[in-house]
Amino acid sequence: MEKIKETLKRIESIPARLYADARRHLDRLAIPRRSLGRLEDIAQRYAAIKNLKVSPVRKKVIFTFAGDHGVVEEGVSAFPKEVTPQMVLNFLRGSAGVNVLARHAGAEVVVIDIGVDYDFKPQQGLIIDKVGYGTGNIAKGPAMTYEEAVRSINIGIALMDKWKEKGTDIVGTGDMGIGNTTPSSAILAAMSGRNIEDVTGRGTGIDDDGLKRKISTIKKALDINRPNRDDPIDVLARVGGYEIGGIAGLIIGAAASKTPVVVDGFISGAGALIAIRLEPKIKEYIFASHNSVESGHRIFFDILGDEPLLDLNMRLGEGTGAALGISLIEAGIRIFSEMATFEDSGVSEGEY
Amino acid sequence: MEKIKETLKRIESIPARLYADARRHLDRLAIPRRSLGRLEDIAQRYAAIKNLKVSPVRKKVIFTFAGDHGVVEEGVSAFPKEVTPQMVLNFLRGSAGVNVLARHAGAEVVVIDIGVDYDFKPQQGLIIDKVGYGTGNIAKGPAMTYEEAVRSINIGIALMDKWKEKGTDIVGTGDMGIGNTTPSSAILAAMSGRNIEDVTGRGTGIDDDGLKRKISTIKKALDINRPNRDDPIDVLARVGGYEIGGIAGLIIGAAASKTPVVVDGFISGAGALIAIRLEPKIKEYIFASHNSVESGHRIFFDILGDEPLLDLNMRLGEGTGAALGISLIEAGIRIFSEMATFEDSGVSEGEY
Repeated sequence: MEKIKETLKRIESIPARLYADARRHLDRLAIPRRSLGRLEDIAQRYAAIKNLKVSPVRKKVIFTFAGDHGVVEEGVSAFPKEVTPQMVLNFLRGSAGVNVLARHAGAEVVVIDIGVDYDFKPQQGLIIDKVGYGTGNIAKGPAMTYEEAVRSINIGIALMDKWKEKGTDIVGTGDMGIGNTTPSSAILAAMSGRNIEDVTGRGTGIDDDGLKRKISTIKKALDINRPNRDDPIDVLARVGGYEIGGIAGLIIGAAASKTPVVVDGFISGAGALIAIRLEPKIKEYIFASHNSVESGHRIFFDILGDEPLLDLNMRLGEGTGAALGISLIEAGIRIFSEMATFEDSGVSEGEY
Repeated sequence: MEKIKETLKRIESIPARLYADARRHLDRLAIPRRSLGRLEDIAQRYAAIKNLKVSPVRKKVIFTFAGDHGVVEEGVSAFPKEVTPQMVLNFLRGSAGVNVLARHAGAEVVVIDIGVDYDFKPQQGLIIDKVGYGTGNIAKGPAMTYEEAVRSINIGIALMDKWKEKGTDIVGTGDMGIGNTTPSSAILAAMSGRNIEDVTGRGTGIDDDGLKRKISTIKKALDINRPNRDDPIDVLARVGGYEIGGIAGLIIGAAASKTPVVVDGFISGAGALIAIRLEPKIKEYIFASHNSVESGHRIFFDILGDEPLLDLNMRLGEGTGAALGISLIEAGIRIFSEMATFEDSGVSEGEY
């Protein structure tokens, strides 16, 4: 817990002066003022986070945390549990969605086995740092102990620290874990106080009966575990998941090291919510990549106070949305650093 | 006119069989079915256009057509007319918005002086093929003759033919022309039958008085010129612009040569509308990149029957939206061609 507290203490709000300086530069570009819209907003915040030293973007990394979920035995997912390790192996072969989109964005994918119910051989691109072999079934008891929740967050923080030293300029979050929309919805319900029905969707594609089952499972999980909404780590321990804790830790570490972090979809949103509730200043370092098909995702954006960059009807996770988001953010960064101003281009300014 | 007619005749609808074959491939990818949403839809259509031969994407090119507008003398723009040639020079130096975003997408920018009121020196990256030195003031008479409208379209068709031979796989449209939201709104009003108020926005950033002036100017233009909405070339001649005709021609040429074409913002939408009204099958080859701040843009998407990929509050033109769109489309193409299927990854299929 000490490591988490110490890291949270290091998180600073971005000075208003830096936002203003970044804006001033953007307003000098040889275009009608603010005509690049959200691309400029992205660039402004990124530049402010980076103390106006924005370019070139060096290492871009997506961290995909994988873990299993005991709640799968309740029949809450359209896919069997063995798909979690199968997909991890697919990531390591470089042929999953996140690999393809990360390559397109020029980003590296780092896969972390933080709690898969399978023993992988050590190999290139895979970090094995297990908190357990799958969580407990939250419909029957807690997902993990408080200590395990702390450990899963610490793993994310440590990863960020290590990659920061390697010169990483921007990170993205990703997840793999069959069944993990169920704990994500449970976290969202517990922390937002919203109805379970409002925060629960079809995940990988369950039918109407499956959805009813999923909602009643989450209800049971909240009734039995009674998570303390004022203690995000307690919520994570009681109804969360190891990979969700890892994502929360990565985001905490990113904010502490002034690294912009691109949050993927619904599961990453649950991790981000835990991080934000531990320290609201973290919001300033988060870029929401895309709007997931999962209906509860909207509530996350409301809490974050920012809109996602993309809305492409996606619901895959893995870090696929983060990869697309990183590419758009880099487009904004390049606008900031590569475009001519009115002065240096000799273009006449308009009247407005 | 013969060249246009002959090109329009070459345009074929994409066979339903190819859409189905592309879909079948996507449904085999090792992800929950359709979980990559619009990225899959993009890939499906692109693959169908390309007869399922999708990868790797070779040349990506954005054509930015530049022309001047006599109507600027009515005070419809926040920027002076000399900004058109100034920006063309900025494009050629590689430091405008479209250059930066095209570089990010790995696309080439080709600038065409199709009617700027300025004599450029011949130089690398600039094609000089003038239809005139700026259009006539549409508030007082026609923008150009019917023959000039035909010629501007032919220039776009010829460019596409030439670049197709160079191995271009995808093209984007772009525009530069101070004052050109005015003719674009006039075209949209004439062809959609909608109120001028509904299709007219603030362009580069005029104030309330400017907007009123712009609306009354468009009203005058339509009253005086009485464009024949059943003849898109007549509409282009009476209230259009040279660069809008060039864009229409490029899109016609793209559809005829089975080249996916990414349409930029509001001005490009006006060009696309002329192309679509000449041959509705052209819609199948168009990818709408982004939703512009210009309020009338929505009407274009309704006519196109497709939604833009991005909504980033942009309103710059130049081809900036097309550049971002090309990058997203390429992401979809790579999903199609680089991802593992359930069979070759050994991932268990779900039940849905």
